[in-house]
Amino acid sequence: VEFGGLRAHCPEAALHAARAAYLAGCQATSNVEAGSRFGIPVSGTMAHSWVMAHMDELTAFARYTAVHGARSILLIDTYDTVAAARLIVSAGLRPAAVRVDSGDLAGLSAAVRAVLDAGSLQETKILVSGDLDEHRVAALVASGAPIDGFGVGTAVTTSADAPSLSGVYKLVAVERESGMVPLAKLSPGKRTVPGEKQVWRVARSGETQRDVVATADELGPPGGVPLLRRLMRRGVPTESAPALDAIRDRCRTAVAALPDGVRRLTDAERFPVELSPDLDRLSRRVGGRDDQGP
Amino acid sequence: VEFGGLRAHCPEAALHAARAAYLAGCQATSNVEAGSRFGIPVSGTMAHSWVMAHMDELTAFARYTAVHGARSILLIDTYDTVAAARLIVSAGLRPAAVRVDSGDLAGLSAAVRAVLDAGSLQETKILVSGDLDEHRVAALVASGAPIDGFGVGTAVTTSADAPSLSGVYKLVAVERESGMVPLAKLSPGKRTVPGEKQVWRVARSGETQRDVVATADELGPPGGVPLLRRLMRRGVPTESAPALDAIRDRCRTAVAALPDGVRRLTDAERFPVELSPDLDRLSRRVGGRDDQGP
Repeated sequence: VEFGGLRAHCPEAALHAARAAYLAGCQATSNVEAGSRFGIPVSGTMAHSWVMAHMDELTAFARYTAVHGARSILLIDTYDTVAAARLIVSAGLRPAAVRVDSGDLAGLSAAVRAVLDAGSLQETKILVSGDLDEHRVAALVASGAPIDGFGVGTAVTTSADAPSLSGVYKLVAVERESGMVPLAKLSPGKRTVPGEKQVWRVARSGETQRDVVATADELGPPGGVPLLRRLMRRGVPTESAPALDAIRDRCRTAVAALPDGVRRLTDAERFPVELSPDLDRLSRRVGGRDDQGP
Repeated sequence: VEFGGLRAHCPEAALHAARAAYLAGCQATSNVEAGSRFGIPVSGTMAHSWVMAHMDELTAFARYTAVHGARSILLIDTYDTVAAARLIVSAGLRPAAVRVDSGDLAGLSAAVRAVLDAGSLQETKILVSGDLDEHRVAALVASGAPIDGFGVGTAVTTSADAPSLSGVYKLVAVERESGMVPLAKLSPGKRTVPGEKQVWRVARSGETQRDVVATADELGPPGGVPLLRRLMRRGVPTESAPALDAIRDRCRTAVAALPDGVRRLTDAERFPVELSPDLDRLSRRVGGRDDQGP
């Protein structure tokens, strides 16, 4: 479940991050507006302030359950996590899940699971959260902790490892009387690659092997599939946008087709991207400035 | 000059970053909308695409100067920086400044300064940009390079060293029949400090020494100045917002009053923040749960 609304860089960014997280494989979002605007499944639990605003923890749980019924997910780590699980059992509440947001998540989930099972709440799931990222999730899964779901916020909604996008736009061609003329910025260390381009993705036996960046008018490499196509002509879209679930499926298929080495969480390999022979030649020719200006 | 519009996390973030950069001491912004909305001085130069879209560099410079006149800042690093400076001199252009956005900024600025001075353009300033941050600016200043201004983008508009803000809100008090009751979240490692608060800033001989976080109703430390005050009552502002320049002056004064050690770019000291004795006692009392609920 995507939980990142409170850490996004602006409310609009929170919405688009929720959408991107769902496309990338999250099951749901806690952002109700994102659910409403994009049709993403919505899921969430109470806040610590809900628990603290009541006279005691049990009253907070009981009132929440009175509103949300069997779908309730109760947040049990405000004071003493295992004691809160015992309280739920002894009060006869039957929440869909409980959430633990702090402390030793592997140890607490095992202790809470034991309390719930002993209280005939085998159906109640355990959701954990609290500054999780892909590495902590992988470690918790590897530990065999009895955790049914993960709420991830900051790490999915912000880019902790790449807080700024160093991409820039540069002019690659200009239309002159003689036709389209390829251009490049030539500054040392900041050269650009000239000309209109196509990107070809090359697979073998269903596994993506490399991308080849080529000039727009050359033939692609054998077995290559072009990734760029025209979606707009003179400012007017030429086809309608695909449905959210269709984009999600395409994303899932594309990621599954990447080599295992590229998809590893640690020591990942770099996905190979090459220039085509034609584009390499064009780049050298423009770099020599033999067709720049008069 | 704040140059970060193209790297901000959304257009709205770009506007607020431009405002924050001006408040913190930048002289101007390249974000025209920020200038219009907040009254920040606007400054900027052409894009590389302006140069590349013309048949040659000199035509690009001449046409830009025809529009912007003596205020023009010409971008000279698209192809060959020093050659572009010579071109400006030999064409008799008199721009307000030239900008170098790539390469060895210290070396290029010295070479460009020599060309400009030899061409009687002593008044033409040199502005540099290109992934600058406070450390690169400090190094360029220390090198004695003849640079008159810096355009900083990514590093001032995004938080490369802190891409997410780990601050959270927690309930600190709730009004019950008996009056306001202080509350705290007690989870191990995630405890909160209970009760309504005031922050006191303590100075000696004009230099800020420490902040003391206290309960809202206790007396502050000797010489302390309270930092929090009520600006809204029942949803209605009780005073109008100060002018942009007044906020900028307050910011400058507050930063100047901080100890040198805290303001250092490298190996900076941590500014001391303490809990008052009353707040510490309250925190221990609520931590003992001796006034939590029934």
